[in-house]
Amino acid sequence: MRFVDLIIKKREGKALTTEEINDWIRAYTDNQIPDYQVSALLMAIVLRGMDKRETSDLTLAMMHSGDIIDLSGIEGIKADKHSTGGVGDKTSMALGPMAAACGVKIAKMSGRGLGHTGGTLDKLESIEGFDCYLSKEDFIRQVNDLGIAIIGQTGSLVPADKKLYALRDVTGTVESMPLIASSIMSKKLAAGSDAILLDVKYGSGAFMKTKEDAVALADMMIDIGKSLGRNVRAMITDMELPLGNAIGNALEVKEAVATLKGQGPKDFTELCMTAGKIMLVQAKKAENEAEAEKMLEEVIANGAAFEKFKAMVHAQKGNTAQIDHTDLLPAAKIVTPMISPTDGYIHHMTAMEIGRLAMEVGAGRATKEDKINPAAGIVLNKKVGDKVCAGDILAWIHHDEPLDKRWGQAFFNAYDIRYEAAVTEPLIYKVL
Amino acid sequence: MRFVDLIIKKREGKALTTEEINDWIRAYTDNQIPDYQVSALLMAIVLRGMDKRETSDLTLAMMHSGDIIDLSGIEGIKADKHSTGGVGDKTSMALGPMAAACGVKIAKMSGRGLGHTGGTLDKLESIEGFDCYLSKEDFIRQVNDLGIAIIGQTGSLVPADKKLYALRDVTGTVESMPLIASSIMSKKLAAGSDAILLDVKYGSGAFMKTKEDAVALADMMIDIGKSLGRNVRAMITDMELPLGNAIGNALEVKEAVATLKGQGPKDFTELCMTAGKIMLVQAKKAENEAEAEKMLEEVIANGAAFEKFKAMVHAQKGNTAQIDHTDLLPAAKIVTPMISPTDGYIHHMTAMEIGRLAMEVGAGRATKEDKINPAAGIVLNKKVGDKVCAGDILAWIHHDEPLDKRWGQAFFNAYDIRYEAAVTEPLIYKVL
Repeated sequence: MRFVDLIIKKREGKALTTEEINDWIRAYTDNQIPDYQVSALLMAIVLRGMDKRETSDLTLAMMHSGDIIDLSGIEGIKADKHSTGGVGDKTSMALGPMAAACGVKIAKMSGRGLGHTGGTLDKLESIEGFDCYLSKEDFIRQVNDLGIAIIGQTGSLVPADKKLYALRDVTGTVESMPLIASSIMSKKLAAGSDAILLDVKYGSGAFMKTKEDAVALADMMIDIGKSLGRNVRAMITDMELPLGNAIGNALEVKEAVATLKGQGPKDFTELCMTAGKIMLVQAKKAENEAEAEKMLEEVIANGAAFEKFKAMVHAQKGNTAQIDHTDLLPAAKIVTPMISPTDGYIHHMTAMEIGRLAMEVGAGRATKEDKINPAAGIVLNKKVGDKVCAGDILAWIHHDEPLDKRWGQAFFNAYDIRYEAAVTEPLIYKVL
Repeated sequence: MRFVDLIIKKREGKALTTEEINDWIRAYTDNQIPDYQVSALLMAIVLRGMDKRETSDLTLAMMHSGDIIDLSGIEGIKADKHSTGGVGDKTSMALGPMAAACGVKIAKMSGRGLGHTGGTLDKLESIEGFDCYLSKEDFIRQVNDLGIAIIGQTGSLVPADKKLYALRDVTGTVESMPLIASSIMSKKLAAGSDAILLDVKYGSGAFMKTKEDAVALADMMIDIGKSLGRNVRAMITDMELPLGNAIGNALEVKEAVATLKGQGPKDFTELCMTAGKIMLVQAKKAENEAEAEKMLEEVIANGAAFEKFKAMVHAQKGNTAQIDHTDLLPAAKIVTPMISPTDGYIHHMTAMEIGRLAMEVGAGRATKEDKINPAAGIVLNKKVGDKVCAGDILAWIHHDEPLDKRWGQAFFNAYDIRYEAAVTEPLIYKVL
């Protein structure tokens, strides 16, 4: 079959066969199909969709396009967690050690960030000396010994997704549920864990703008996992506003450490606890969520979760003094308080815009080549639902260069402050 | 604006602005936008459409991407005709001389064929010595002196369409009304004629599969022409079955000559007469169609139409002996009669398939590099509605290499012969 016939088939809304999907991904990975044909097919998929079987086939084809990590050398149930990404999302750094302290094996591969803020790797690298690039043997040994390792995704993991994602990014074909689901799941499946917990975010700061879309995406990914015999669960969580208070790499490490000590922001702590409960049950470390909750509360109260994080940092050559005393982490030259110009209640804050503003002061990358300033970022002092008076501090900006007027204007524009009291949405909409 | 934002805008079903369309076509013609972005946009246009204003803007932007032919050096109203293409379509070779003999100025640029049969240029080149590449000055001089010239489209005419068409061909983005309409009309408008007659075909042998689609396409092209002050009319004609009896280059020249002498097949003669009547009125050579009909009948009866064709062939260095005696045109080594295996009435013949079979014996090109055999082709002896008896000749195949069994099987499969009498469709469905 000529590739153009496959494009026409999808353009006409027909389902591609397993063989057609396999041929496509194999040939594209081997550079045998030009980008201009694949981008036309991707646009047809965005507008015509893919059914469950096609999405599952695409996931498998991508998963098999490169290395598949064999975690059988690690004893027990290996658990992985994936977030569809949002502003201030430092969940892996807190949830990972909490679950590991309860006996779950966390063998996690993470990515870097592009856009609003850094990825988990960028955040961990704000710790002096932290090494994200372990050999496969060291990775498995560390998970066996310590119960946790967080490393960078190797280049040979799902190369088809790497090529497709780069093309989707410049051809307006990112926003497609089957393409997003297969991209995420192919990487999670290739990374080898038995149990997978997905945090699917919705709202202005997320890919999925509505709860309904987030649920549909989660359902799709659970189905894919099921069809391959993996234990997949999902939380649907709010990303209308940033998660926790800190946005920026070292600032988020600090907040994760505080959370591991039981002193984290309420919303972020709630998310980690809910995720931890699900994960402990998935990994058969607890009979039910009530038991899991007690275990998690205990490892926070007795310091075991904090010690687990510190041990991981130590094992990966990071400076643990910066964990014991987070004031030793990189600090910005200037910390500017942003003062509320008005009285009222915060009805809304645009997560995506706040993320973008954090990026502008150095917390994220606009292009792959940009360097992140680990110290830069924003720490929120008030969130949606809070009452503020004129003169109250809305947030502190951590930066090295002076802020310009336009930046300040954009910052205040991201807030919707009104006279009447605000109704807040729950952080966790649903667990699937 | 980044080009990816323009892709997303169209993906979301929004209309592109005039400026966006101009920027796109200018940048793409100058090789400043990669094919993989344009193919994604084209697929979004195929699936989301373009409104009238966008289609008209796209036509204008393409028209202005290269040279625009100035025909003001030719006196009187210049008329052009375009067919959306079909099997056995030799209309330009008969209609052109008929109209020119009645005083219409025909300054026609034609293309080559890809697929089922050759284009008008390929057909004319089956005449020994015929030169399709006149200089602009010679072209204008010939139309002034003789009233007609048919030449090849220059490379600098609508280069944007050339690039876009090549990309559409390999990315499954050919079948889009606004893209087809703007492609045709940009070339017709750049070619400079005042009056344009479109022959929009529908049926299995055409781009448009239904009458309704053909009417919609014709309406779109008439609107574009109107918005630019050109006199555009359209015929909607049947391409369920081949036009006339001859399919193949020299064979079609022969049939065009017969038609100019009043001895052509009934359907093809009817098409040329209808087109000629419209064109004479458009070019103000006749007050109305009744008067035009008389004029056309006269130039056929008195030989003026035939002489006009011969004079054009002479002016373009072709061997006129082959026009006086069409048996001197290239002839195939073998002429095989195809015998009906059964009694009945022909209910249907698949034009596209018969075109493809003609291509296989050498009448057309499968790829741009293929050479056409001017002598090869098919001459139908029976058409839809005709009664046939087992043993009757359905068609003669003109070929140089032996036919294989598979070819013969496919030939008979293109016919639907049944016991009961067949109802035939009129050739001309509508004139707009």
